[in-house]
Amino acid sequence: MKLKVKNFDWLAGRPVVILNNKTAKKINVFQGDRVALQNSKKFYSIVDIFPKLVSEKEIGLSTEITKLLDIKQGSLVDVSPAPMSPASILIKKKINGKTLTEKEFSIIIEEIVTNNLTEAEIAYFIAAQKMQNMTIKESISLTKAMIKQGEKLEFNSKYVADKHCIGGIAGNRTTPIVTSICAAAGLTMPKTSSRAITSAAGTADVIETLSNVEISLSELKQIVNKHNACLVWGGSLGLSPSDDKIIQVERLLNLDVESQLLASIMSKKISAGSKYILIDIPHGPGGKINTLTQAKNLGNKFKQIAKAFNVKIIIAYTDGSQPIGNGIGPVLEMLDILKVLKNDPTAPKDLKEKSIHLASDLLNLCGQKNSLKKAREILASGKAYEKFKDIINAQNKSNNFDEKVKELKLAPYKKTIISPEDKKITKIDNKKINTLCRILGSPETIGSGVYLHKHKGKISSKQDLITLYSASKLKIKEAEEYYKKEKPITLK
Amino acid sequence: MKLKVKNFDWLAGRPVVILNNKTAKKINVFQGDRVALQNSKKFYSIVDIFPKLVSEKEIGLSTEITKLLDIKQGSLVDVSPAPMSPASILIKKKINGKTLTEKEFSIIIEEIVTNNLTEAEIAYFIAAQKMQNMTIKESISLTKAMIKQGEKLEFNSKYVADKHCIGGIAGNRTTPIVTSICAAAGLTMPKTSSRAITSAAGTADVIETLSNVEISLSELKQIVNKHNACLVWGGSLGLSPSDDKIIQVERLLNLDVESQLLASIMSKKISAGSKYILIDIPHGPGGKINTLTQAKNLGNKFKQIAKAFNVKIIIAYTDGSQPIGNGIGPVLEMLDILKVLKNDPTAPKDLKEKSIHLASDLLNLCGQKNSLKKAREILASGKAYEKFKDIINAQNKSNNFDEKVKELKLAPYKKTIISPEDKKITKIDNKKINTLCRILGSPETIGSGVYLHKHKGKISSKQDLITLYSASKLKIKEAEEYYKKEKPITLK
Repeated sequence: MKLKVKNFDWLAGRPVVILNNKTAKKINVFQGDRVALQNSKKFYSIVDIFPKLVSEKEIGLSTEITKLLDIKQGSLVDVSPAPMSPASILIKKKINGKTLTEKEFSIIIEEIVTNNLTEAEIAYFIAAQKMQNMTIKESISLTKAMIKQGEKLEFNSKYVADKHCIGGIAGNRTTPIVTSICAAAGLTMPKTSSRAITSAAGTADVIETLSNVEISLSELKQIVNKHNACLVWGGSLGLSPSDDKIIQVERLLNLDVESQLLASIMSKKISAGSKYILIDIPHGPGGKINTLTQAKNLGNKFKQIAKAFNVKIIIAYTDGSQPIGNGIGPVLEMLDILKVLKNDPTAPKDLKEKSIHLASDLLNLCGQKNSLKKAREILASGKAYEKFKDIINAQNKSNNFDEKVKELKLAPYKKTIISPEDKKITKIDNKKINTLCRILGSPETIGSGVYLHKHKGKISSKQDLITLYSASKLKIKEAEEYYKKEKPITLK
Repeated sequence: MKLKVKNFDWLAGRPVVILNNKTAKKINVFQGDRVALQNSKKFYSIVDIFPKLVSEKEIGLSTEITKLLDIKQGSLVDVSPAPMSPASILIKKKINGKTLTEKEFSIIIEEIVTNNLTEAEIAYFIAAQKMQNMTIKESISLTKAMIKQGEKLEFNSKYVADKHCIGGIAGNRTTPIVTSICAAAGLTMPKTSSRAITSAAGTADVIETLSNVEISLSELKQIVNKHNACLVWGGSLGLSPSDDKIIQVERLLNLDVESQLLASIMSKKISAGSKYILIDIPHGPGGKINTLTQAKNLGNKFKQIAKAFNVKIIIAYTDGSQPIGNGIGPVLEMLDILKVLKNDPTAPKDLKEKSIHLASDLLNLCGQKNSLKKAREILASGKAYEKFKDIINAQNKSNNFDEKVKELKLAPYKKTIISPEDKKITKIDNKKINTLCRILGSPETIGSGVYLHKHKGKISSKQDLITLYSASKLKIKEAEEYYKKEKPITLK
């Protein structure tokens, strides 16, 4: 059916067309369905139905589709219900239990990147990966496909390295410390991180308390070439862009899909040019990975993928049974990091030691001898702190590090919960601590979150246990209620 | 975050809110995510991002959500990213291979009906049903949940009956004939049908060539009470309303999900008040069901569900190896139906005999003796034809049946393909015939489609094989090309 184009200055985030309800009925499409649009080119788009905006003879185009079709207001375009795309046929094949080839994954990922698949179709793809067996060969193919469809970085230096934690542990903000130590030791660390999805803060949220984290690929290269490292948000760089969309659909159900986790992490690291990769797999009861056996099983898959791409990898199997560090929430975590980098005696020991060991593992992977001693020295000497300052200043294009640190402020309302008597802390539930922080306003309110005065072990009567921070009295009250009901900390 | 309400007179089809991109970023939601809206009530809604329509401090509401929240322009509403809904947690449980209870299916179906689940979440639900085992008990629970969330019909008569074909066969328009025979024999047949999804025509499309098919539940009751039957579109009646949404997501990949098929069919029939149900399961190579064993396996599941709801059921295992009837496309099929009902000697014998046998099965199920003879007599006597006329006139609220029949017109362009020499037709592919009709313009152009001059068996040199009908010369050409390339009819 030929329809008259009405261009809207409307950034819908993907190619969307607006149809009148009567037109939609005529061509037998519903909201969310796909139509094919054809003038000299042919593109696919998702249908939105909005009777007040277009008449029966018109079609409204989002900016994205206007650009793709290069089409003028008032011209005609042929609109028809789209048959299943090649990618949807392949997703159906995977749902039916078949194995897909590298070429086939490439078609699916390309259609995800060009917005040709609806979120429901991406959900089918994720569900198929989750419920049908994905061979390691398929995971490798998926990783290749994800790399192929995105930007790539290259650095001249030999030791381009990266670290990644599979997550699930509250606090655990080792990345800024490990990156600073390793960069000071000469490694090249183009570190990109994510924002919080379900946790109290992501590394990007924490770094953002001091510095700009949204920089372009070319700026990133400049900073890394000058300072050996950066600490930026990976979301806007276009490295493995399909991943952002897949994660968006995965998080609807907070699904953990192993093959997608493997491909997601490895594609981002390899796209960023890394040749030496450390993966931190925390494990423990109640975490993402419960046992060491499960952790090793996952670790071995990372190794097989790394081998296929000819990159060196080391897996750190770490304790995931409780939060790492004292502060949880963007500013609270940054304060812990600064204490560690400045060798403050009150710095959280667990965060410090874990960071040193991870840095040592990565230095060792890059051929540096006595790596543990070296990592410790770099931190103790203040070199890591200097490196961290340089990175922050470079990302801010200003030497304003000290001012920025002074501006770090905790949220104005707080409430400290104390131990009622001499007790033993037997468990600190990572998920519940994260939820508690979300209730308090993290990561949106950067100064909100919790401070854990103690980790697992003995606590005396009247000793401080946990302090809640929030910008709202009401949220403090809500968090207290949650705390009482859900007991994120078990005392015995 | 508190935002100022801007009500749009915008029927989005579901509760949608429009956020500015900056606001969305602040509260950490993406397009398609869910937010919770709270004033004195609490509702969920899907996010659309449209920077030009609302400022950072505003939120645009679709008509649906304005009504739900009962909220005025300019008032404030608290907006926060929504945690996973109870239904999404249950869908995840099913993805993880667990069995769900009746209560749990009820929660999922309720959230589908109230638009609280995104299409991606519905896709996860469908995928979980497809890839994890669904016990017969779960199918029964799902059916119950689907019935519970919709409208129900009740009739005073004892023999409220229905028939349903699981589909996949081109032509095969037995419903109007079976309904007319059975209604004439005294059964009550509140027949609701669907429009075409991927086929050339649905029963509702075919009936619509003569009559209005979109009527209200109260009109439906009046017509059935007066004439024993109706032949309407089921889509707008609100019987098992979750089904329409589920089908919309299923058809993205044209997935056949057995548990959903069972629940979908049975919930609609039972909601319509039927106590006697005939299910036609065509089987044959290339169809939805390939073998009699598979057909019986499915048939037995229908029987188990019927037993749980205390309704009588009979399964007809029929030949699904080729199209039924000669015409395929809305008008072409109606012409076949009229020939059968009018006892025209040129009526397609396969359609006539199949309809008589199905009617006989249903009469027999309702306790009528000598049902085959009776069905044949009712058709031969013209009583079925009279009943059909009454139904059409009642649905049109006018005695215009004869005029309507005169207005039936085939599409203006046609092309007949003949057999090149003496041959045998060994196969007619249902799917390819449907695709051919879609290319020719069915079901949108009601007079388009194909006429099969012969079914499987011998054909002489130069004898007519198939005629293509379309409103466009170009489409005739396209269809010819498809015919040559895909060979929907195999000659040997």
